[in-house]
Amino acid sequence: MDDYKSISLSPPTADLRNSVELQMSEKQKNSNYTAGKPIQCRAAVVRVAGEPLVIEEVSVAAPKSHEVRIKIICTSLCHSDVTFWNLKDPPGCFPRILGHEATGVIESVGDNVTEFVEGDTVIPVFLPDCAECVDCISLKSNLCTKFPFNVSPVMARDGTSRFSDSKGETLYHFLNVSSFSEYTVVDVANVTKIDPSIPPNRACLLSCGVSTGVGAAWKSAGVEAGSTVAIFGLGGIGLAVAEGARMIGAKTIIGVDINADKFEIGKRFGVTDYVNPKTCGTKSVSQVICELTDGGADYCFECVGMASLVYEAFASCRKSFQGWGKTIVVGIGKPGAQLTFSSFDVVHYGKTIAGSLFGGLKPKTDISTLLQHYLDGKLQLDKFVTHEVSFEDINKAFDLLLQGKSLRCVIWMDK
Amino acid sequence: MDDYKSISLSPPTADLRNSVELQMSEKQKNSNYTAGKPIQCRAAVVRVAGEPLVIEEVSVAAPKSHEVRIKIICTSLCHSDVTFWNLKDPPGCFPRILGHEATGVIESVGDNVTEFVEGDTVIPVFLPDCAECVDCISLKSNLCTKFPFNVSPVMARDGTSRFSDSKGETLYHFLNVSSFSEYTVVDVANVTKIDPSIPPNRACLLSCGVSTGVGAAWKSAGVEAGSTVAIFGLGGIGLAVAEGARMIGAKTIIGVDINADKFEIGKRFGVTDYVNPKTCGTKSVSQVICELTDGGADYCFECVGMASLVYEAFASCRKSFQGWGKTIVVGIGKPGAQLTFSSFDVVHYGKTIAGSLFGGLKPKTDISTLLQHYLDGKLQLDKFVTHEVSFEDINKAFDLLLQGKSLRCVIWMDK
Repeated sequence: MDDYKSISLSPPTADLRNSVELQMSEKQKNSNYTAGKPIQCRAAVVRVAGEPLVIEEVSVAAPKSHEVRIKIICTSLCHSDVTFWNLKDPPGCFPRILGHEATGVIESVGDNVTEFVEGDTVIPVFLPDCAECVDCISLKSNLCTKFPFNVSPVMARDGTSRFSDSKGETLYHFLNVSSFSEYTVVDVANVTKIDPSIPPNRACLLSCGVSTGVGAAWKSAGVEAGSTVAIFGLGGIGLAVAEGARMIGAKTIIGVDINADKFEIGKRFGVTDYVNPKTCGTKSVSQVICELTDGGADYCFECVGMASLVYEAFASCRKSFQGWGKTIVVGIGKPGAQLTFSSFDVVHYGKTIAGSLFGGLKPKTDISTLLQHYLDGKLQLDKFVTHEVSFEDINKAFDLLLQGKSLRCVIWMDK
Repeated sequence: MDDYKSISLSPPTADLRNSVELQMSEKQKNSNYTAGKPIQCRAAVVRVAGEPLVIEEVSVAAPKSHEVRIKIICTSLCHSDVTFWNLKDPPGCFPRILGHEATGVIESVGDNVTEFVEGDTVIPVFLPDCAECVDCISLKSNLCTKFPFNVSPVMARDGTSRFSDSKGETLYHFLNVSSFSEYTVVDVANVTKIDPSIPPNRACLLSCGVSTGVGAAWKSAGVEAGSTVAIFGLGGIGLAVAEGARMIGAKTIIGVDINADKFEIGKRFGVTDYVNPKTCGTKSVSQVICELTDGGADYCFECVGMASLVYEAFASCRKSFQGWGKTIVVGIGKPGAQLTFSSFDVVHYGKTIAGSLFGGLKPKTDISTLLQHYLDGKLQLDKFVTHEVSFEDINKAFDLLLQGKSLRCVIWMDK
């Protein structure tokens, strides 16, 4: 990440806020003409797995019942976009409009939409939250029963797409969002209203990555002041775990990464110690961590998606029952991957394994809490945005992430 | 369990309490003569794995620093006793005095013992609780750091035995307790003082099995009112899980056992539904449970100790994050057993795996809470005691458990 500091970043200034308000006014004016009709606009389409995205003129149908159409202000690139961009076989699906971290403004609403009106500033979230089912009304779950989370390429309620290309052929959705388009249609279960005064290039980070990491530390693990934490993989999500642990007062935050540059970056998010698997010599990473922590970290996070790293994280955890000794699996493994643990470690040492989707957060309620922490100067969203590009340069955002140079690159639709 | 009702049980009557008080007075009188000296008494010794216990005259040395000598009033037989009785290879170890569920009275104390005095009524607990280390003073753990739990056959502090036979040869300890002896020596970290008015043949159940099951439901899982629960294995511990779930108001408690008699017994502890793996036809147990619970039980408990059942319990759990969808592994698996789970189930479905040793309870603090629930008529300890025998008949207790006829058989030392 040699050019980490060379990119000029947009701070969340009054100018930016004015710009958002201007866009909203324009939208509200425009909506008189566009509501109920298809919108022709630009979208970045993936036609072949792994090949550069192509910005095309597409048609975005009007929102149907329980759907809204959103004008995207800005969107940021997450590793899951890159994963699905590269995925030749199902659930890879082409041609498709990727993107799932974004800030936007409601352009129009379909029938039976009561939660939103035109002009609302929102962020779409891949994880449905119907706010009605037994899971959504409970604090014990963030997995909607009414709309089970999946990577279906179509709208949840009617199983069709709202996108088509200039030839009238279907373009597929991605993760219920598809924000690499000037306009997109999203189910109300996947939209959260936010305070419009929050800079859009900060709010968009809470659509996925930062929320996932901070939530993993706070809700999935329950990190407390004085905890010891080990994080495997210091990408955007791993650093968001560190940020969540730092905010809550963890005393030791160990970062594990094969890229030594990540330690300096990690320090900005509270990482106190660094372990490079390449320089552990004859010791395993877990041996080094157990020595550093006098028996194992209270909480370990796997943020890469490798079964072998999950095992190493599990081995790096302290013995316990009742909370400590918890391995949180945040990284998405390859399809069919199996996780294997010693029964003895589970039953005699009290080690626990838990997954964390969207950090265990509930989109409709928890995002506003995180944004308040940002406004209070506690959650360092600014530090995650290492690059910003215009929509035309969206492939540059992919290059930066693939080269390990960016944490989050914001893509502005109108710049 | 055809003779389940044919055994005359001792209810916790005033007579029993008087009997305990009498024993205490005798002990206090005796202690003037025995404190500081070895005591000759009877113990049931296992000399060869799997062969009947032999009641022998043994010598029980005086307690050393931080140890107490306990006169056992009664002891109950737990499956772990049977497991180690049968274990030819290490950690099997012979000749040995088994037994780890008991009620007794402090006969004498060693140096540096401030927590107990002669005459205190106590229950020994296999799990150490030093009350000083970072784990013991935290609510996040019940695994003592100072005295890590293991199945060592000797005293924790000096690595020697307090037992010898009539030839002066060493007899080994079991699980820090060895209660199949009229007197035993136990570290203060393994002793909990209790209210002497509680019937000893009820209190002893909290040394291990009932505490483990109720704690697994309350602390390890966090079952709440209205929960759905599935329990694999309706032995003493599985039924104690049911009892814990019943007490807290779980609405559905599914018992899984290949012994159909267990359903009738289970009903007494709140089991509402029964699944017999032998009669599931073409469906798996988890399919049947998922249908019964509309997608999976909130909490599943494996109480047998088979890796394949852990997998089935995991498959029977609902999707969730943040609490529901938790598989609690209570059963002790074979040495070297591995547990394997799909990464997808963990990361996308939010299913959690956690072990439960002593139900996640802290011996020095949580046992008194359970005993209070018994005194308040809420915790049905009486129903667990299906048989009572005199010390001479201790092998009958083994037979009853091996034949699946008993839940808990209390062995009275002085009857």
